[in-house]
Amino acid sequence: MKHLLIAAHGSRRESSNEELKHLGMKVSAMLGVANNQVDVAFLEFASPSIENALVELFNNHVTEVIVLPYFLSAGNHVVRDIPAAISKVLAQWPDKKITLLPHIGALDSMVGAIAGAFES
Amino acid sequence: MKHLLIAAHGSRRESSNEELKHLGMKVSAMLGVANNQVDVAFLEFASPSIENALVELFNNHVTEVIVLPYFLSAGNHVVRDIPAAISKVLAQWPDKKITLLPHIGALDSMVGAIAGAFES
Repeated sequence: MKHLLIAAHGSRRESSNEELKHLGMKVSAMLGVANNQVDVAFLEFASPSIENALVELFNNHVTEVIVLPYFLSAGNHVVRDIPAAISKVLAQWPDKKITLLPHIGALDSMVGAIAGAFES
Repeated sequence: MKHLLIAAHGSRRESSNEELKHLGMKVSAMLGVANNQVDVAFLEFASPSIENALVELFNNHVTEVIVLPYFLSAGNHVVRDIPAAISKVLAQWPDKKITLLPHIGALDSMVGAIAGAFES
Protein backbone atom coordinates (compact mmCIF):
# COMPACT_ATOMS: atom_id res chain seq x y z
CA MET A 1 0.00 0.00 0.00
CA LYS A 2 1.35 3.39 -1.01
CA HIS A 3 1.88 6.01 1.66
CA LEU A 4 2.04 9.78 1.27
CA LEU A 5 4.72 11.72 3.11
CA ILE A 6 4.26 15.49 3.19
CA ALA A 7 7.80 16.87 3.52
CA ALA A 8 7.62 20.30 5.15
CA HIS A 9 10.18 22.80 6.39
CA GLY A 10 9.13 22.81 10.02
CA SER A 11 8.74 25.86 12.24
CA ARG A 12 9.87 27.09 15.63
CA ARG A 13 6.17 27.61 16.29
CA GLU A 14 4.72 24.33 17.49
CA SER A 15 1.27 25.50 16.33
CA SER A 16 2.51 25.64 12.71
CA ASN A 17 3.78 22.08 12.91
CA GLU A 18 0.49 20.96 14.45
CA GLU A 19 -1.35 22.75 11.63
CA LEU A 20 0.58 20.55 9.19
CA LYS A 21 -0.35 17.37 11.02
CA HIS A 22 -3.97 18.46 10.98
CA LEU A 23 -3.69 19.09 7.23
CA GLY A 24 -2.36 15.55 6.82
CA MET A 25 -5.47 14.22 8.55
CA LYS A 26 -7.73 16.28 6.28
CA VAL A 27 -5.90 14.86 3.24
CA SER A 28 -6.32 11.27 4.42
CA ALA A 29 -10.01 11.95 5.06
CA MET A 30 -10.42 13.36 1.54
CA LEU A 31 -8.57 10.38 0.05
CA GLY A 32 -10.68 7.98 2.12
CA VAL A 33 -7.63 6.21 3.52
CA ALA A 34 -6.45 5.48 7.06
CA ASN A 35 -4.94 8.42 8.97
CA ASN A 36 -1.57 6.69 9.17
CA GLN A 37 -1.34 6.42 5.39
CA VAL A 38 -0.61 10.16 5.20
CA ASP A 39 2.36 11.31 7.26
CA VAL A 40 4.10 14.61 7.78
CA ALA A 41 7.84 15.04 8.29
CA PHE A 42 10.11 18.05 8.73
CA LEU A 43 13.51 19.31 7.63
CA GLU A 44 14.05 21.50 10.69
CA PHE A 45 12.66 22.47 14.09
CA ALA A 46 10.24 19.53 14.40
CA SER A 47 10.16 15.77 14.30
CA PRO A 48 10.09 13.31 12.73
CA SER A 49 12.78 14.13 10.20
CA ILE A 50 12.12 13.07 6.63
CA GLU A 51 14.76 10.39 6.96
CA ASN A 52 13.36 8.99 10.21
CA ALA A 53 9.81 9.08 8.91
CA LEU A 54 10.81 7.02 5.85
CA VAL A 55 12.76 4.52 7.95
CA GLU A 56 9.81 4.14 10.32
CA LEU A 57 7.49 3.42 7.42
CA PHE A 58 9.86 0.85 5.92
CA ASN A 59 10.34 -0.82 9.31
CA ASN A 60 6.56 -1.15 9.36
CA HIS A 61 6.59 -3.03 6.05
CA VAL A 62 5.46 -0.14 3.85
CA THR A 63 7.00 -0.73 0.42
CA GLU A 64 6.23 2.49 -1.47
CA VAL A 65 6.15 6.12 -0.38
CA ILE A 66 5.16 9.20 -2.39
CA VAL A 67 7.01 12.27 -1.06
CA LEU A 68 5.40 15.68 -1.64
CA PRO A 69 7.68 18.65 -0.86
CA TYR A 70 5.40 21.11 0.93
CA PHE A 71 7.25 24.18 -0.35
CA LEU A 72 6.07 27.06 -2.49
CA SER A 73 9.26 27.57 -4.44
CA ALA A 74 12.20 25.51 -5.62
CA GLY A 75 14.84 26.63 -3.14
CA ASN A 76 17.71 24.61 -1.73
CA HIS A 77 15.45 22.50 0.46
CA VAL A 78 13.53 21.29 -2.57
CA VAL A 79 16.46 21.03 -4.96
CA ARG A 80 19.06 19.58 -2.58
CA ASP A 81 17.99 18.63 0.95
CA ILE A 82 14.90 16.52 0.34
CA PRO A 83 16.47 14.51 -2.53
CA ALA A 84 19.55 13.97 -0.33
CA ALA A 85 17.44 12.59 2.53
CA ILE A 86 15.67 10.25 0.12
CA SER A 87 18.93 9.02 -1.43
CA LYS A 88 20.34 8.28 2.00
CA VAL A 89 17.35 6.16 2.96
CA LEU A 90 17.21 4.33 -0.37
CA ALA A 91 20.87 3.38 0.03
CA GLN A 92 19.84 1.44 3.15
CA TRP A 93 16.60 0.09 1.70
CA PRO A 94 17.31 -0.72 -1.96
CA ASP A 95 14.17 -2.87 -2.27
CA LYS A 96 11.80 -0.02 -1.38
CA LYS A 97 10.30 2.59 -3.71
CA ILE A 98 10.20 6.34 -3.09
CA THR A 99 8.60 8.68 -5.64
CA LEU A 100 9.48 12.35 -5.29
CA LEU A 101 6.76 14.72 -6.56
CA PRO A 102 7.32 18.35 -7.68
CA HIS A 103 6.99 20.91 -4.87
CA ILE A 104 3.43 21.98 -4.18
CA GLY A 105 3.98 25.53 -5.48
CA ALA A 106 4.52 24.09 -8.95
CA LEU A 107 1.08 22.47 -9.08
CA ASP A 108 -1.41 24.00 -11.50
CA SER A 109 -4.05 23.81 -8.80
CA MET A 110 -2.25 26.66 -6.97
CA VAL A 111 -3.40 29.13 -9.63
CA GLY A 112 -7.00 28.19 -9.01
CA ALA A 113 -6.54 28.34 -5.25
CA ILE A 114 -5.27 31.94 -5.46
CA ALA A 115 -7.93 33.03 -7.94
CA GLY A 116 -10.61 31.49 -5.73
CA ALA A 117 -9.34 33.35 -2.68
CA PHE A 118 -9.62 36.67 -4.54
CA GLU A 119 -13.14 35.99 -5.77
CA SER A 120 -14.58 34.78 -2.45
CA MET B 1 -11.56 48.32 -8.76
CA LYS B 2 -10.13 45.77 -6.34
CA HIS B 3 -6.55 44.65 -6.79
CA LEU B 4 -4.93 41.45 -5.57
CA LEU B 5 -1.49 41.59 -3.97
CA ILE B 6 0.26 38.26 -3.51
CA ALA B 7 2.57 38.80 -0.54
CA ALA B 8 5.46 36.33 -0.76
CA HIS B 9 8.64 35.80 1.22
CA GLY B 10 11.07 36.38 -1.62
CA SER B 11 14.14 34.30 -2.36
CA ARG B 12 17.83 34.77 -2.99
CA ARG B 13 17.17 32.77 -6.16
CA GLU B 14 15.95 35.22 -8.78
CA SER B 15 14.29 32.34 -10.62
CA SER B 16 11.99 31.75 -7.63
CA ASN B 17 10.90 35.39 -7.62
CA GLU B 18 10.30 35.26 -11.36
CA GLU B 19 8.25 32.08 -10.84
CA LEU B 20 6.02 34.10 -8.51
CA LYS B 21 5.53 36.90 -11.02
CA HIS B 22 4.64 34.32 -13.63
CA LEU B 23 2.13 32.81 -11.20
CA GLY B 24 0.59 36.26 -10.76
CA MET B 25 0.08 36.50 -14.53
CA LYS B 26 -1.54 33.06 -14.61
CA VAL B 27 -3.90 34.16 -11.82
CA SER B 28 -4.92 37.36 -13.66
CA ALA B 29 -5.52 35.30 -16.80
CA MET B 30 -7.71 32.87 -14.88
CA LEU B 31 -9.64 35.73 -13.28
CA GLY B 32 -10.03 37.41 -16.68
CA VAL B 33 -8.64 40.72 -15.40
CA ALA B 34 -5.78 42.95 -16.55
CA ASN B 35 -2.26 41.78 -15.70
CA ASN B 36 -1.69 44.81 -13.49
CA GLN B 37 -4.69 43.97 -11.32
CA VAL B 38 -2.70 41.12 -9.75
CA ASP B 39 0.63 42.13 -8.23
CA VAL B 40 3.34 40.30 -6.35
CA ALA B 41 5.39 41.81 -3.51
CA PHE B 42 8.09 40.44 -1.25
CA LEU B 43 9.18 40.60 2.38
CA GLU B 44 12.85 39.94 1.68
CA PHE B 45 15.42 39.52 -1.09
CA ALA B 46 13.29 40.99 -3.88
CA SER B 47 11.32 44.08 -4.76
CA PRO B 48 8.85 45.63 -4.54
CA SER B 49 8.33 45.40 -0.80
CA ILE B 50 4.76 44.90 0.37
CA GLU B 51 4.71 48.44 1.71
CA ASN B 52 6.01 49.98 -1.52
CA ALA B 53 3.65 47.91 -3.65
CA LEU B 54 0.65 49.13 -1.64
CA VAL B 55 1.79 52.75 -1.78
CA GLU B 56 2.31 52.49 -5.54
CA LEU B 57 -1.22 51.14 -5.98
CA PHE B 58 -2.74 53.89 -3.84
CA ASN B 59 -0.76 56.56 -5.68
CA ASN B 60 -2.34 55.15 -8.83
CA HIS B 61 -5.83 55.72 -7.41
CA VAL B 62 -6.55 52.11 -6.47
CA THR B 63 -8.91 52.22 -3.50
CA GLU B 64 -9.07 48.61 -2.36
CA VAL B 65 -6.44 45.87 -2.20
CA ILE B 66 -6.85 42.23 -1.20
CA VAL B 67 -3.60 40.91 0.27
CA LEU B 68 -2.98 37.16 0.10
CA PRO B 69 -0.01 35.94 2.18
CA TYR B 70 1.71 33.38 -0.02
CA PHE B 71 2.94 31.31 2.90
CA LEU B 72 2.18 27.73 3.85
CA SER B 73 2.14 28.18 7.59
CA ALA B 74 1.35 30.88 10.10
CA GLY B 75 4.88 31.84 11.12
CA ASN B 76 6.13 35.26 12.15
CA HIS B 77 5.92 36.65 8.63
CA VAL B 78 2.21 35.89 8.47
CA VAL B 79 1.36 36.71 12.08
CA ARG B 80 3.50 39.80 12.53
CA ASP B 81 5.37 41.19 9.50
CA ILE B 82 2.65 41.37 6.85
CA PRO B 83 0.04 42.86 9.23
CA ALA B 84 2.66 45.38 10.38
CA ALA B 85 3.38 46.46 6.80
CA ILE B 86 -0.35 46.88 6.16
CA SER B 87 -0.90 48.89 9.34
CA LYS B 88 1.94 51.20 8.45
CA VAL B 89 0.49 51.93 5.02
CA LEU B 90 -3.08 52.35 6.31
CA ALA B 91 -1.84 54.91 8.83
CA GLN B 92 -0.77 57.04 5.86
CA TRP B 93 -3.83 56.25 3.73
CA PRO B 94 -6.79 56.11 6.12
CA ASP B 95 -9.33 56.40 3.26
CA LYS B 96 -8.11 53.23 1.51
CA LYS B 97 -9.21 49.65 2.16
CA ILE B 98 -6.89 46.68 2.59
CA THR B 99 -8.34 43.22 3.23
CA LEU B 100 -5.90 40.67 4.60
CA LEU B 101 -6.77 37.09 3.66
CA PRO B 102 -5.63 34.00 5.58
CA HIS B 103 -2.31 32.59 4.38
CA ILE B 104 -2.62 30.27 1.41
CA GLY B 105 -1.72 27.18 3.44
CA ALA B 106 -4.94 27.67 5.42
CA LEU B 107 -7.18 27.49 2.34
CA ASP B 108 -9.37 24.43 2.03
CA SER B 109 -8.29 24.11 -1.60
CA MET B 110 -4.83 23.07 -0.39
CA VAL B 111 -6.25 19.79 0.91
CA GLY B 112 -7.57 18.98 -2.55
CA ALA B 113 -4.29 20.01 -4.19
CA ILE B 114 -2.33 17.56 -2.00
CA ALA B 115 -4.83 14.75 -2.39
CA GLY B 116 -4.79 15.26 -6.15
CA ALA B 117 -0.99 15.08 -6.26
CA PHE B 118 -1.10 11.73 -4.44
CA GLU B 119 -3.73 10.25 -6.73
CA SER B 120 -2.20 11.35 -10.03
